[in-house]
Amino acid sequence: MTAEQRLKALGIVLPTAAAPVANYVPAMRSGPLLFVSGQVAFGPDGKIDARHRGKLGAEIFNEAGLEAARLCGINVLAQVRSAIGSLDHVTRCVRLGGFINSAPDFQALAAIMNGASDLMVAIFGEAGRHARSTVGVAQLPLDSAVEVEAIFEVRG
Amino acid sequence: MTAEQRLKALGIVLPTAAAPVANYVPAMRSGPLLFVSGQVAFGPDGKIDARHRGKLGAEIFNEAGLEAARLCGINVLAQVRSAIGSLDHVTRCVRLGGFINSAPDFQALAAIMNGASDLMVAIFGEAGRHARSTVGVAQLPLDSAVEVEAIFEVRG
Amino acid sequence: MTAEQRLKALGIVLPTAAAPVANYVPAMRSGPLLFVSGQVAFGPDGKIDARHRGKLGAEIFNEAGLEAARLCGINVLAQVRSAIGSLDHVTRCVRLGGFINSAPDFQALAAIMNGASDLMVAIFGEAGRHARSTVGVAQLPLDSAVEVEAIFEVRG
Repeated sequence: MTAEQRLKALGIVLPTAAAPVANYVPAMRSGPLLFVSGQVAFGPDGKIDARHRGKLGAEIFNEAGLEAARLCGINVLAQVRSAIGSLDHVTRCVRLGGFINSAPDFQALAAIMNGASDLMVAIFGEAGRHARSTVGVAQLPLDSAVEVEAIFEVRG
Repeated sequence: MTAEQRLKALGIVLPTAAAPVANYVPAMRSGPLLFVSGQVAFGPDGKIDARHRGKLGAEIFNEAGLEAARLCGINVLAQVRSAIGSLDHVTRCVRLGGFINSAPDFQALAAIMNGASDLMVAIFGEAGRHARSTVGVAQLPLDSAVEVEAIFEVRG
Repeated sequence: MTAEQRLKALGIVLPTAAAPVANYVPAMRSGPLLFVSGQVAFGPDGKIDARHRGKLGAEIFNEAGLEAARLCGINVLAQVRSAIGSLDHVTRCVRLGGFINSAPDFQALAAIMNGASDLMVAIFGEAGRHARSTVGVAQLPLDSAVEVEAIFEVRG
């Protein structure tokens, strides 16, 4: 199956990629690498649900954090498709950067970030396995619980 | 207008690029990509003004944060010129990474980071529009309010 | 001397590279660039010593932080060797990203990160001098005091 077929089989509908709200763009290509801007946990309605805002370990907890990371991953994919036309032009997910809005004592950062990593492997198979860094930060835009940035290798 | 001409028209004088203070360098090229080290809000005198230190949302506020982000951007440009001789060898600003020294409840991170993003577009025009990630961090070197790192695509 | 010879001369034994614990991999190559996942301060026994856990400036202090950064660097090198067979295939350390688990008022971030940067120059010589960003974060996986990610340029 191709990535677009897997996406469909999983019943995932990518949202319309958000228009840039400032002097930056959601994704920028240089040679074979596509750099995707950090995506927050916007839902299908273009808003961050209260469930996916706030600090892990203080205001929200593991299950909601995992959902937030998956939403960030979905928004990353929406930006990829918008930038290059189809997920099927991706040859490799190279790297994810995961930023978790964390209470100072919240240590289960890697488990939260799996919400995004698992999605990449579900969609791209072996080509979805990526290098990754996960850190807990003091705050994220709009109080999103998670932000995910990415680098993909693309063809064409 | 070229990037160097725009810089002049805007009256921006790039500071002398700071010499490396440790076993790292301000910028490193690999193929067409120039990776610029995280730059803090040093002013023209090589010091961080008290106005550009501290946590957004607690010790300093929006206008000073925006200025700090712009200073980081100016220092990024100084490192680019020092590394490749002229801003006119830049073909694209590919990515900015923005780290904002934030109180745990400060959410307007994207607005602060525009101080750096707007500068790139002012200098490079369309080629200045970049992918970007912005996060709020617990602390930055020398208590700088902002730190900006960058990837450029360069020719020659 | 080659990088592997310098490593030996310094008496550094690289640990067995940790197996991936989730749907990501410790390092991913795209063209000449090898992206290494964020590495925490695991010791030779595969555990993070209590000495290398916690927040700089509150729970632990400079010397232990420097050791933690060096351990992260050693783990980065272990992943490089595991990914490409030998450190001697590295042509350049391009970039390190340093995340320091910091109390909100801890400013000596750059000095801590030198533990990783100095190691790269000790092993790769001039080719070990890299671009770098260092930030203080709210928390890191497993309460590690430091996390280091890297990009190397590799041959073959």
